[in-house]
Amino acid sequence: MTKSTQPANPDFEAVIRESFGRQNLMATLGARLGQVAPGLVEISLDASPALTQQNGFVHAGALVSIADSASGYAALSLAPAGCEVLAVELKMSFMRPAIHARLKAIGRVLRSGRTLSTCAADVLGFEREGDSVLVATMLSTVSIRRSAGAGV
Amino acid sequence: MTKSTQPANPDFEAVIRESFGRQNLMATLGARLGQVAPGLVEISLDASPALTQQNGFVHAGALVSIADSASGYAALSLAPAGCEVLAVELKMSFMRPAIHARLKAIGRVLRSGRTLSTCAADVLGFEREGDSVLVATMLSTVSIRRSAGAGV
Amino acid sequence: MTKSTQPANPDFEAVIRESFGRQNLMATLGARLGQVAPGLVEISLDASPALTQQNGFVHAGALVSIADSASGYAALSLAPAGCEVLAVELKMSFMRPAIHARLKAIGRVLRSGRTLSTCAADVLGFEREGDSVLVATMLSTVSIRRSAGAGV
Amino acid sequence: MTKSTQPANPDFEAVIRESFGRQNLMATLGARLGQVAPGLVEISLDASPALTQQNGFVHAGALVSIADSASGYAALSLAPAGCEVLAVELKMSFMRPAIHARLKAIGRVLRSGRTLSTCAADVLGFEREGDSVLVATMLSTVSIRRSAGAGV
Repeated sequence: MTKSTQPANPDFEAVIRESFGRQNLMATLGARLGQVAPGLVEISLDASPALTQQNGFVHAGALVSIADSASGYAALSLAPAGCEVLAVELKMSFMRPAIHARLKAIGRVLRSGRTLSTCAADVLGFEREGDSVLVATMLSTVSIRRSAGAGV
Repeated sequence: MTKSTQPANPDFEAVIRESFGRQNLMATLGARLGQVAPGLVEISLDASPALTQQNGFVHAGALVSIADSASGYAALSLAPAGCEVLAVELKMSFMRPAIHARLKAIGRVLRSGRTLSTCAADVLGFEREGDSVLVATMLSTVSIRRSAGAGV
Repeated sequence: MTKSTQPANPDFEAVIRESFGRQNLMATLGARLGQVAPGLVEISLDASPALTQQNGFVHAGALVSIADSASGYAALSLAPAGCEVLAVELKMSFMRPAIHARLKAIGRVLRSGRTLSTCAADVLGFEREGDSVLVATMLSTVSIRRSAGAGV
Repeated sequence: MTKSTQPANPDFEAVIRESFGRQNLMATLGARLGQVAPGLVEISLDASPALTQQNGFVHAGALVSIADSASGYAALSLAPAGCEVLAVELKMSFMRPAIHARLKAIGRVLRSGRTLSTCAADVLGFEREGDSVLVATMLSTVSIRRSAGAGV
């Protein structure tokens, strides 16, 4: 339903990969940047004892973390050069306990705007044989701003 | 506005402190459990390089993590013995970048129910001289269930 | 991604149409029940001067009203006989002003549970020539309960 | 916690009352504008058969409608002259069925910004003797823009 999937910055993937490298929380959680396409970004996370809540499931906050970054970078993939993104707000519904060995957040842009974008993200849990189930889903609003250091 | 601030389980604080100790993500982030009162739980987090997003602010996912745990435990503080809590959904609005040295999530129960509770949480950022500002605020729904291992 | 699209109550459509007839707000707004399928319900709304906010767009509250009813009935379409539904919470993102002559909310079940279902709803705006655009999108939690009057 | 409760436009109340008068949905629902103060706006609604869902409670969409307008006008009360407001997104949690004869939405600004404000709104239900209970609560993001017709 999104028509604005033409990247305004041809270097969007390099910009996103460099920025992800500076998101120290991603390294702390063990999250990895996957596919980076115009309007769509994936982040994977292997379950580990460091990420659990009290029952041994991956904590909701870890799911939000990867879905938020995937959504923000999906928005950034369609923004002009010299922009940065910041979460305004997010909402996540948790549909199943995150008991899976591997999780993947897929962030997508629903509407790309000049100063605000609306994003959706699904968090999938991967089971044996590669089957996946929908563990959680997010809607969020992302603010798009000129970078403080942008030479413009 | 909440009338149900009488704990149904006199041992609620011990239950919550023991459960928090099993939330490995809290240790991974460096979060500490603070006040535990009927219907109100606080969790503190010192900013650290391990928690940042790309600009050096504390990542939204870390704010959600402590606010979600504080809200869940606030709900658990009013639940009968032998119950556990699980996030159904949460929504957080981010009002300022989390540039502060110390953050505190204060989770409160707005309505305590038998199977679902509605919670609110504020994340405060502490500045020099002890002043604080509202960095983010959350509304969430918490499911309350008999523990799998509850002997009842 | 939803597997539970088999209706538990073969009379689900009649139940939903009867219940919609008792939702007086739908008549007050001029909303009409459209397609009713297992896990998917549509509600249409013609723009009218009675529904506007201050600029002449359809008010956000009218969009939420039809999306909430479509989501609740989508959840009810998969529930056993003798159940009723109630919104626990909802979140809507508004992507474009609702300047269209006709709007349609499409409610879908993302996860159907025994006591709680997670739903998504899109509100489409219809333009000339039948093209549609995504005006708003909702995520919600629906509670499923035995009807007070259910003879079971 | 909000410091920005000084109105930037001394005529804020007249602006809001004039704008409310153009929100036709408010008249359709029977909603009335109450207190208008810097950063806080109240809207009341008498329960009526025209507003119900299938069980005779006031429909969630009507609660959202008054809370959304109260929040938007609370944001507008702190905006400069010549601005208008538009909902970006909202989230409401429903805590009790709206079985009350009278409802009141109280919208408050949590953070007032130049282009975006964060608002909270409570919907209270009034019982006999003037007691009230919290029926629902909202968090929302409001966009602030120069009016199309603003002579600036």
